[in-house]
Amino acid sequence: MPEMSSSKIGSSASTKTSEFPHRRSITTISMIADAMQRENLKMTENKSAHEKIFDELVTATKILINERIMDTFGHISARVPEDPQSFFLAQKLAPSLITVNDIQRFNLDGETSDNRPSYLERYIHSEIYKARPDVQCVLHTHSPAVLPYCFVDQPLRPVTHMGAFLGDAVPVYEIRDKHGDDTDLFGGSPSVCRDIAESLGSYPVVLMARHGVVNVGNSVREVVFRAFYLEQEAAALTAGLQIGTIKYLSPGEINAAGKLVGAQIDRGWDHWSQRLRQAGLA
Amino acid sequence: MPEMSSSKIGSSASTKTSEFPHRRSITTISMIADAMQRENLKMTENKSAHEKIFDELVTATKILINERIMDTFGHISARVPEDPQSFFLAQKLAPSLITVNDIQRFNLDGETSDNRPSYLERYIHSEIYKARPDVQCVLHTHSPAVLPYCFVDQPLRPVTHMGAFLGDAVPVYEIRDKHGDDTDLFGGSPSVCRDIAESLGSYPVVLMARHGVVNVGNSVREVVFRAFYLEQEAAALTAGLQIGTIKYLSPGEINAAGKLVGAQIDRGWDHWSQRLRQAGLA
Amino acid sequence: MPEMSSSKIGSSASTKTSEFPHRRSITTISMIADAMQRENLKMTENKSAHEKIFDELVTATKILINERIMDTFGHISARVPEDPQSFFLAQKLAPSLITVNDIQRFNLDGETSDNRPSYLERYIHSEIYKARPDVQCVLHTHSPAVLPYCFVDQPLRPVTHMGAFLGDAVPVYEIRDKHGDDTDLFGGSPSVCRDIAESLGSYPVVLMARHGVVNVGNSVREVVFRAFYLEQEAAALTAGLQIGTIKYLSPGEINAAGKLVGAQIDRGWDHWSQRLRQAGLA
Amino acid sequence: MPEMSSSKIGSSASTKTSEFPHRRSITTISMIADAMQRENLKMTENKSAHEKIFDELVTATKILINERIMDTFGHISARVPEDPQSFFLAQKLAPSLITVNDIQRFNLDGETSDNRPSYLERYIHSEIYKARPDVQCVLHTHSPAVLPYCFVDQPLRPVTHMGAFLGDAVPVYEIRDKHGDDTDLFGGSPSVCRDIAESLGSYPVVLMARHGVVNVGNSVREVVFRAFYLEQEAAALTAGLQIGTIKYLSPGEINAAGKLVGAQIDRGWDHWSQRLRQAGLA
Repeated sequence: MPEMSSSKIGSSASTKTSEFPHRRSITTISMIADAMQRENLKMTENKSAHEKIFDELVTATKILINERIMDTFGHISARVPEDPQSFFLAQKLAPSLITVNDIQRFNLDGETSDNRPSYLERYIHSEIYKARPDVQCVLHTHSPAVLPYCFVDQPLRPVTHMGAFLGDAVPVYEIRDKHGDDTDLFGGSPSVCRDIAESLGSYPVVLMARHGVVNVGNSVREVVFRAFYLEQEAAALTAGLQIGTIKYLSPGEINAAGKLVGAQIDRGWDHWSQRLRQAGLA
Repeated sequence: MPEMSSSKIGSSASTKTSEFPHRRSITTISMIADAMQRENLKMTENKSAHEKIFDELVTATKILINERIMDTFGHISARVPEDPQSFFLAQKLAPSLITVNDIQRFNLDGETSDNRPSYLERYIHSEIYKARPDVQCVLHTHSPAVLPYCFVDQPLRPVTHMGAFLGDAVPVYEIRDKHGDDTDLFGGSPSVCRDIAESLGSYPVVLMARHGVVNVGNSVREVVFRAFYLEQEAAALTAGLQIGTIKYLSPGEINAAGKLVGAQIDRGWDHWSQRLRQAGLA
Repeated sequence: MPEMSSSKIGSSASTKTSEFPHRRSITTISMIADAMQRENLKMTENKSAHEKIFDELVTATKILINERIMDTFGHISARVPEDPQSFFLAQKLAPSLITVNDIQRFNLDGETSDNRPSYLERYIHSEIYKARPDVQCVLHTHSPAVLPYCFVDQPLRPVTHMGAFLGDAVPVYEIRDKHGDDTDLFGGSPSVCRDIAESLGSYPVVLMARHGVVNVGNSVREVVFRAFYLEQEAAALTAGLQIGTIKYLSPGEINAAGKLVGAQIDRGWDHWSQRLRQAGLA
Repeated sequence: MPEMSSSKIGSSASTKTSEFPHRRSITTISMIADAMQRENLKMTENKSAHEKIFDELVTATKILINERIMDTFGHISARVPEDPQSFFLAQKLAPSLITVNDIQRFNLDGETSDNRPSYLERYIHSEIYKARPDVQCVLHTHSPAVLPYCFVDQPLRPVTHMGAFLGDAVPVYEIRDKHGDDTDLFGGSPSVCRDIAESLGSYPVVLMARHGVVNVGNSVREVVFRAFYLEQEAAALTAGLQIGTIKYLSPGEINAAGKLVGAQIDRGWDHWSQRLRQAGLA
């Protein structure tokens, strides 16, 4: 394998495993080697396309922090355009520190040949990419106004046209259903994350009970847009529930408004990017 | 038409249509040409007056973002002083990116000879200018503390002298009344916007059910002032409703305080403009 | 009067009146002239003491804006140390624009020889200085978390040691009691402000029903301190009222804790001043 | 004592006492001298280790202010690694002003040979270090979203995995139990602080009724992490209580998730430190 001359790649041949090795399925060295060869071949032709995606993932992370949606424990990934069996996700780092040099490439079992540390929750991403071929981007956050809906019996339903994309009500993944009430509530294993993907179904958002939020979409920009308006919708609903009786969106409104709003995604991205520049963060 | 020598104006002779052409009434080329001639004639004499309005529209947008009233989807317009059948509104752009070079001129059917993209919701502006000759400025936002009042049965009524301008209670436009519950909840058509203007009546604010807020006033500065205090009034009322029984303003207080506060508009403008400068945003 | 050679002072001999002349008692030219002479005599000896007060009033205004307590319509004044019948208050300006050059000197009828515009609400200050010889500083704000307590039947009572200075409950001035329910809710007349001072009694804070807040204290720094912790106390109480039964401070705790906290005022001033510097605002 | 040549140390031989001398147990000069000798001997060898701790205490203070958890009256301390009978705590200063040159060294009776002013509440720190040998860091704040749980009958219990470290419910120290309802609610005496430590028990947090919050942990970084997520957990619970029935963490989840989250502390520290740098504060 002369193309694997770099010491970093070479050392990864010892099969990097996660911090919790017992949670990770065994991968043979030959599988990893195949993946690395494939990656190397495509590297030159796709370089600029990948750089663009890396830029978007870094900018998305900055926007989500700056707009107060992501705290210390969020992460956003994107499917590799020319290889749907792979996705890009930053190495295990504080989100405010991530640069384009921190992006790792994973297969849909959450494995990487990058020998730097990886997020424990990467299976949330891998299992959703596996279950949802239409999804190009996955985001996990503890979005503060959404968080209460992860532990109350009140469903999160759309109340304005900006939330129509949510559908009738945001599904909630309840880990207790299969695993009882002694778990760590964490998305650190492939099997739990498969169930999260199942709860997500064809929706754009799923809540993890007593944990947090997962957003998906067709692009990094769409997911940032949806994360922003999910937070705003949850904040408005929480206030509304305290002051009167809610008039929720009807099924017809959810359908019609959901389509309309989706066409305006770049305006959001331009707006939040400009706010980053004004704050000296981009 | 030798006065239309600029390539940009010339190309617009191909009749710019909106993104949703079926929603826009057909305009003949001769009407557009007439409008453009009229505009060119007045351009020289009114240049500095218009520049001042453009500056105010840009500053107003920045203030509304900086004071957390406008998100990605707001826009503010001003009637053309010497031509009440026209109004100025930015081209379709993220609000944080708008400059004085982005202002378009529309007639009261929401049509423009400017061939750059226009906001789909411009009819909210055009129909209100048509219905309310006294109005010189129109603003659309998703003002966060006001948003809950767009989908609960609790009326938004003034609770302090700063909200007296609102009158007895802010009217709500309910699109379901005429159009049923399968709409996109959007102000994208002239007919819906005519109804919004009708719901507004002689009030300074109208809420669009499950969508957002429209403010109007005698000047850009007055509308910014009213948008700021509408947001503050809604936040205070929401808190008040949760902690006790509300003592609302009486009709006499609404009348007397409404007049008084209106005289202090420039102080607000000066204050928020200075805060923009301090934030390095102006 | 050769000492009044400056054109500005000279022109003020034409007796500056307020924007609402009918609300202001007539002052004879000789009274004004006397006041001016007295002021000039003391000017040299007290210059540095006054400059220090002007600095504190400007810094206090900046702190109150930066800590989100004062909006467009607040103002803070200080009694003149060597002349208890006078007080300093900025001219009528947006608070973010005030500098040491904007301070006016008023007598306890709210009159000044300064011919620049004055705040309409200056009688709130003058009447409290008249009624409360112990008070050295008066502040008027629309402190956002306190505002709801101006229009609900829920009293604002201390819930932590930081609010012990408030006493048993913050008194509320209800303008309807004497003036009915057709007023402008405004503190623009001496007679209304006399009643506000009466409602204040010996308390450190009085709420003006459906209007705002008045804080008083022994120094500019104490009033800023109290305004900050009044806001924090109101926010905590509002949250507490929504989640359980409140255990308020007992009379003994109010008494003991009130004395203790008052000794720490400079720490607050130092802290908030440093935050101003860090924000590039001082 | 020739090694005490510095005038500052020399002058402290006059036995610095607190602002409330009657609250402080009398310390003989010989005890102080002993402590000083011991300190001097170790000073050289431990200098860089101490400097690292001073840096962490200063950075922790800045993070807690920047993330809106600490107001004017918070303070954070660290046990001296090589001398468990001592701890470091800043001198009595506004938190935003503290530098590495402001750290004082105390024994577990809250006494110091440093002759600059000390916080009155230092006994909260000393008594907890005495009662809890495992604790390496103590923090006192008025964390705003936690404050309501200091005066309502609603227990603060974990609702997400990030709050699992709290255990079943945060204990509350009620000063009235032993001292009646005429106290100043303050942690200014060793005996009250002994009771606070007793209420803390083996928990990571104790609330002081009608006063504030105390966090403890194994390191400065762990305590900052816990303070941040305590605030977030309280905010989420307060919102949740207002919109539905809460599904709290089960005992098993508290146990399992508490262990997991604790492993991620440095990511929080890196994230908040980077935000300080971005804000120009570090």
